[in-house]
Amino acid sequence: MEEFIKQNEQTELKLASKRDKPDKAVIILSGGADSITLLYALVVEYGCMNISALSFNYGQKHVKELEMAKATCKKLKVHHEIIDLRTLSNIFAGSSLVSQNNIEIPEGHYQAENMKSTVVPNRNGIMLSIAMSYALSRNIPKIFYGAHAGDHAIYPDCRPEFVGAMQKVGQLCDFNKVEIHAPFLYANKRQIIRLGLNLNVDYKLTWTCYKGAGKPCGKCGSCQERLEAFEQNDARDPLEYES
Amino acid sequence: MEEFIKQNEQTELKLASKRDKPDKAVIILSGGADSITLLYALVVEYGCMNISALSFNYGQKHVKELEMAKATCKKLKVHHEIIDLRTLSNIFAGSSLVSQNNIEIPEGHYQAENMKSTVVPNRNGIMLSIAMSYALSRNIPKIFYGAHAGDHAIYPDCRPEFVGAMQKVGQLCDFNKVEIHAPFLYANKRQIIRLGLNLNVDYKLTWTCYKGAGKPCGKCGSCQERLEAFEQNDARDPLEYES
Repeated sequence: MEEFIKQNEQTELKLASKRDKPDKAVIILSGGADSITLLYALVVEYGCMNISALSFNYGQKHVKELEMAKATCKKLKVHHEIIDLRTLSNIFAGSSLVSQNNIEIPEGHYQAENMKSTVVPNRNGIMLSIAMSYALSRNIPKIFYGAHAGDHAIYPDCRPEFVGAMQKVGQLCDFNKVEIHAPFLYANKRQIIRLGLNLNVDYKLTWTCYKGAGKPCGKCGSCQERLEAFEQNDARDPLEYES
Repeated sequence: MEEFIKQNEQTELKLASKRDKPDKAVIILSGGADSITLLYALVVEYGCMNISALSFNYGQKHVKELEMAKATCKKLKVHHEIIDLRTLSNIFAGSSLVSQNNIEIPEGHYQAENMKSTVVPNRNGIMLSIAMSYALSRNIPKIFYGAHAGDHAIYPDCRPEFVGAMQKVGQLCDFNKVEIHAPFLYANKRQIIRLGLNLNVDYKLTWTCYKGAGKPCGKCGSCQERLEAFEQNDARDPLEYES
């Protein structure tokens, strides 16, 4: 990893010498495998100094993901902010993903109908809107988020048409414009994990399980999708699972 | 006013008898003259029982507007929630509208260039996104907000093209759809105040001044626009001004 950062710092220097002002970017970092893989890729492209990572505490049961986001940013020397939206958890209380209720996280395959209870309506719209404010206030021209093809069925706010609508908002909401990028939009989990393995992502510092227990459960849709993706890449997930 | 509410309750009953399920609506209520006029109009159309008013505390200097929002909702018997976004005030700190900095609220005409310091980038995008979450979680099909023509020059997130982009987001962000309505989008302040005078709006319970002092200053762009609108309607603003 040390070498990766060193390499990255060289990349950054090269980028900076090629362009007067190297681009800056904001990333929405949940602390899950997808967004952390994306962060590693951005560090290579933009340099760790040019990235601001935003995480959101909206009262999710799996608040542990925020610790992982923090630890990874520390490791990669990326500026990180956790935005406290717990005052919104009352609004989101209908979703099983939020700790304020007793609705159980469903088990079973990720794409199954019952995963819909985990939907927090327009959650990504809220996070992207705040990221836009953040970026526009700091003259940062680009926002990245890790929506991927496996999310499309369950989460409308991960679909291409939603991303398109938010891109339009980014062009119109201020005197300046901000671009929204979702580079994994057509990638599946297997491809994302493969990229991450190539980038030496430290997947021990990621959290995917929707339950908030000490170890990931291995049974919820989110765990299952992750485990499958490692398997399909003939790799071993470094996390220790409950089951 | 008592009579107005009585009348309104009758209207509501009539609406309810005409339709099995009377429509419900969310309104973004700043506590300013525009959104409160809109609220009165909605109470006539939907009935006070069918409206949820959302106000936002984002660290604005003129937090007094929230007291007015609360008082008006109490008077009109409308459900009201103040959503605490003060954790975002750090993001907004570049705007003179926010209390976390010492940037002074500019004086002079509302449309003047210097009013741009009061812009909080994408503020309405954030508020609308949260309102979408709120409405979608409660099967409320409509959201109203009070953007008006006088805002277009200064506030990009009050322009028709922005409203159009957010309407698209409301159609795509969840399995269900939510409509965004901005009925004052092409109305000027004079027309809004005229409507409000016809609706018997109690403008004593509104707050327009961008400064947070005990009495409205009468000098900032926001005060000036309001005072002009009353004058153009040959009416007297019931607020007591500093100057």
